[in-house]
Amino acid sequence: MTSWKSSYRWVVEWHSPDSGIISVASEILYSGRTKYQEVDIVRNDDYGKMLVLDGKFQSSLSDEFIYHEMLVHPALITQGNPRDVLIVGGGEGATLREVLRYRSVRRAVMVDIDGEVVEICRKYLPEMHQGSFDDPRTTLIIDDGRKFLRETKESFDAVLVDATDPIEGGPSRLLYTVEFYELVRSRLRENGVVATQGTSTFYNASTFARVMNTMRSVFPHVGGYQASIPSYISDWGFVVGSLGRDPASISPEEAEARARELGLSEFKYYEPSHHPYYFWLPPHVRRKVEEEKGVSRDEEPVSVY
Amino acid sequence: MTSWKSSYRWVVEWHSPDSGIISVASEILYSGRTKYQEVDIVRNDDYGKMLVLDGKFQSSLSDEFIYHEMLVHPALITQGNPRDVLIVGGGEGATLREVLRYRSVRRAVMVDIDGEVVEICRKYLPEMHQGSFDDPRTTLIIDDGRKFLRETKESFDAVLVDATDPIEGGPSRLLYTVEFYELVRSRLRENGVVATQGTSTFYNASTFARVMNTMRSVFPHVGGYQASIPSYISDWGFVVGSLGRDPASISPEEAEARARELGLSEFKYYEPSHHPYYFWLPPHVRRKVEEEKGVSRDEEPVSVY
Amino acid sequence: MTSWKSSYRWVVEWHSPDSGIISVASEILYSGRTKYQEVDIVRNDDYGKMLVLDGKFQSSLSDEFIYHEMLVHPALITQGNPRDVLIVGGGEGATLREVLRYRSVRRAVMVDIDGEVVEICRKYLPEMHQGSFDDPRTTLIIDDGRKFLRETKESFDAVLVDATDPIEGGPSRLLYTVEFYELVRSRLRENGVVATQGTSTFYNASTFARVMNTMRSVFPHVGGYQASIPSYISDWGFVVGSLGRDPASISPEEAEARARELGLSEFKYYEPSHHPYYFWLPPHVRRKVEEEKGVSRDEEPVSVY
Amino acid sequence: MTSWKSSYRWVVEWHSPDSGIISVASEILYSGRTKYQEVDIVRNDDYGKMLVLDGKFQSSLSDEFIYHEMLVHPALITQGNPRDVLIVGGGEGATLREVLRYRSVRRAVMVDIDGEVVEICRKYLPEMHQGSFDDPRTTLIIDDGRKFLRETKESFDAVLVDATDPIEGGPSRLLYTVEFYELVRSRLRENGVVATQGTSTFYNASTFARVMNTMRSVFPHVGGYQASIPSYISDWGFVVGSLGRDPASISPEEAEARARELGLSEFKYYEPSHHPYYFWLPPHVRRKVEEEKGVSRDEEPVSVY
Repeated sequence: MTSWKSSYRWVVEWHSPDSGIISVASEILYSGRTKYQEVDIVRNDDYGKMLVLDGKFQSSLSDEFIYHEMLVHPALITQGNPRDVLIVGGGEGATLREVLRYRSVRRAVMVDIDGEVVEICRKYLPEMHQGSFDDPRTTLIIDDGRKFLRETKESFDAVLVDATDPIEGGPSRLLYTVEFYELVRSRLRENGVVATQGTSTFYNASTFARVMNTMRSVFPHVGGYQASIPSYISDWGFVVGSLGRDPASISPEEAEARARELGLSEFKYYEPSHHPYYFWLPPHVRRKVEEEKGVSRDEEPVSVY
Repeated sequence: MTSWKSSYRWVVEWHSPDSGIISVASEILYSGRTKYQEVDIVRNDDYGKMLVLDGKFQSSLSDEFIYHEMLVHPALITQGNPRDVLIVGGGEGATLREVLRYRSVRRAVMVDIDGEVVEICRKYLPEMHQGSFDDPRTTLIIDDGRKFLRETKESFDAVLVDATDPIEGGPSRLLYTVEFYELVRSRLRENGVVATQGTSTFYNASTFARVMNTMRSVFPHVGGYQASIPSYISDWGFVVGSLGRDPASISPEEAEARARELGLSEFKYYEPSHHPYYFWLPPHVRRKVEEEKGVSRDEEPVSVY
Repeated sequence: MTSWKSSYRWVVEWHSPDSGIISVASEILYSGRTKYQEVDIVRNDDYGKMLVLDGKFQSSLSDEFIYHEMLVHPALITQGNPRDVLIVGGGEGATLREVLRYRSVRRAVMVDIDGEVVEICRKYLPEMHQGSFDDPRTTLIIDDGRKFLRETKESFDAVLVDATDPIEGGPSRLLYTVEFYELVRSRLRENGVVATQGTSTFYNASTFARVMNTMRSVFPHVGGYQASIPSYISDWGFVVGSLGRDPASISPEEAEARARELGLSEFKYYEPSHHPYYFWLPPHVRRKVEEEKGVSRDEEPVSVY
Repeated sequence: MTSWKSSYRWVVEWHSPDSGIISVASEILYSGRTKYQEVDIVRNDDYGKMLVLDGKFQSSLSDEFIYHEMLVHPALITQGNPRDVLIVGGGEGATLREVLRYRSVRRAVMVDIDGEVVEICRKYLPEMHQGSFDDPRTTLIIDDGRKFLRETKESFDAVLVDATDPIEGGPSRLLYTVEFYELVRSRLRENGVVATQGTSTFYNASTFARVMNTMRSVFPHVGGYQASIPSYISDWGFVVGSLGRDPASISPEEAEARARELGLSEFKYYEPSHHPYYFWLPPHVRRKVEEEKGVSRDEEPVSVY
């Protein structure tokens, strides 16, 4: 525990001009700027090592498992037998790590726009990637994810969008639009799934609602869910779209059977036996989703503070 | 939305010396000190009006419904027919408000140690109590909750402990001990229930685990659950103890039927149809609960930062 | 001394987006909004009670004497025999207090635009005004200072401009222009003097330089000086303009003789024996003043962050 | 100028639990820990590059000239013909730089305990040392300054103590005691001088007073003075002790003549023509110095927060 008087290096993330979070860095492992963004890797004595991009907390050792398990497993268990998986973004390599846990996976393609971030994470955050970049099933491509999808001839069982928030002027805004999801669908196989983070359901409820709406205009089955991630403060939204099964229709027994077959065990947050209940959204969130009519399009994409 | 340059009144809550939350006050409605604690009522443009006691965020207009619904309903729906309910603490009057929604309730006794806080909330936070203090079923007693329990001849169907965290040196530490729960049990009727907040399951997982453990040593059925409350940052724990039904054994159908009979509708967070699933704790929390062997006793009570 | 864990009410003043000062309020005595500005009176255990206007620290009990002595005495000692003195602004009443120390003063007119601020200071900051508002020589006028000067038939020996910084969009910007100083000059008697605060010589060196330049275009003798005021962080600039003597030409002996005659003693910061040396500006400030060519005009007034 | 939303790396220096300063780092050039202390070199867009030791701002490009000129020149001009100069501390090399400006100096010995800090400054702060470490007159010794003084056979014309504040438990506390100054005196030649920083005259007035008192118990002539250094917030104190001339007795003309002979020109803060007037302390500081009776001894040294 940092002593108070020596707590002087602060990383402050504002969620709006009205509230923010202070994270004291007991150590700064890396601080610099890539072609795309500011990158900091700091140690916080509550959260462990943290990756910070453009001043936004991306993941911390103490709670990244919540984010990464919840991005990956609801989608892949819904799909049931993922062989070829595409990750858009995912710099830390932790989404990749979760994907590689599936015995069925034979190929995991990760396309991240910022090769420098990937290298920095590879060096400073081995606890996150746990060697996943060296797995023979992994292909790492440094490129714009959308461009990759447009140009690739491959098809996938699942596409996992592990991107930064759609900040105005930021590189990720076009990863949450109708046009993007149509592109994703065109590269998905039968029964394919897509999952994306959906920003805060508290601070950005209408953005979350819009992302759900947008995905619903492209995929026959869509499930929204949330999980509380302390370093993100509020409940965090996720959305899964499916060409096959409805994500919420997988029973606990079925999910457990699938997990077993796929060789999965030792979860820290996701649990097959709770699978369908994750898709319960509390009434106040559900109402916002129901009220939201707009979709996010390239010409007018969603954005958050 | 506060303009950045005019954002100068900050309320900063530290969860540890390593992390905290900044809440900008666009207005300070009240700031003072009672016999027991510092009291501030401020307006934050993300959270709405907030009650702050000794620098700890207690409740905000934007998310208090999560806390108060989740403290009250899992317990009272488990009990099934609450007539006489005791609230220990609960200064804002919002727990009282939720209790009074039950058609079956004929008497709601609220015992709060700090009459000044109650008066301040009554004046500045009408949106929270919504006139509950004027309900003919309400009895407000300004006294130490534990002393009241020791001296009262009454018995109750439910006791709801809506107290501040067990801070070292603070007045609430003895509201989380074996001795206290035994006192509560002695005033409960058959099938009676008790519910308490249980601090953060992230920042204070071992305290939450200890509170569960402590309650298990006194009540035959205990259920722990959590809900994400943005102004508290992380998932917040709650614990319900029951002399009758096991809280997690109430099926969605049964909970819905009970809610209907009791005249409840229009929930914002709690939902009868999800009742048993709230008691799912993610593996990482469950493990901490399983590992914890200690109980909280008067001579060595739990405490948090 | 506030204990660290209970230090949660912060007043944060930003001097730019890159640096600011945190002042912990152990008590908030008043917080509200007048017709013109946000007003807070807080207690800080380093600075004592502080007046904060629109988030800017105006004066604190621990160091207000530096500001008020340095605004008043260099000018009035230069004038030598002030009888009628006009204060523009000066809400706390501390400039008034310093003026009333002069045995020669028979009339002190204070014109402040914000009557609410004056009343709040009168109630909460008696240590600052020390009853000056009740002095029979005092006339308090709630009005726009510039309008007052335009309309008054009176003339004065000294005009002391104790206004907030020339913030963009703020009410004080037109109190630092050629037009304003010409208006002041027109109401000054022979040998009359004017003094104004001149913002930070570090953060706003070019503003300070511009104010000096502007005053030089209207008054034959101008002296700039600075004093370090901890609650303002950096050296603070002041400018005195004189129709009679050059401020820096008053020798220590002459200043001491004048002070004696005028009945002054017991200074805490200003000292007659150091009078001419205050007008020494360090080379780095002097160079900025020399380089600055612009003057501040109504149509394009100076401003600070 | 950092944009507000991207201002997330803060360096926060607390002067007490009640007030502190926020400095936003637009870039972190270095962050690490030496054997003795935490070291950060950050860029702030108001102050330029800054050296931070154990969370305390040591010097910034924008205002280090105030500190370093005021530490060196009042003492060396008082001595009048410095040939051999010892610097105790002075990691950045800026005190060394000022010393080497003297045509008379033939040997400048800098003894700093933390060789890593010196190397880091050498690499990241060339604007401060300006190659001084490569000057043939420079001898850099990595050692404890007090130990060096005890063991050296050399004598000096001036000893400049450029050390961190006497923080409890810190390495500099024994550089402000009677025993230390006696050691210094024993290594000084006839007419020798010593100068030291003296902490804040506002926040630590009694420490400043104690240092003056302590030096007076060892040296026949002692002068205290202060200068406002924005990155230190308040007026900063310095103390010079002299075996020859009284520092305040050097007239402006004499100081100017000496500076000319010694080849000095182009000052940014210190100015020979103002030499004696620096030693004016405002009455409120002077009174504290007069009231202070204690001296700082090894067994009970002064300390600051």
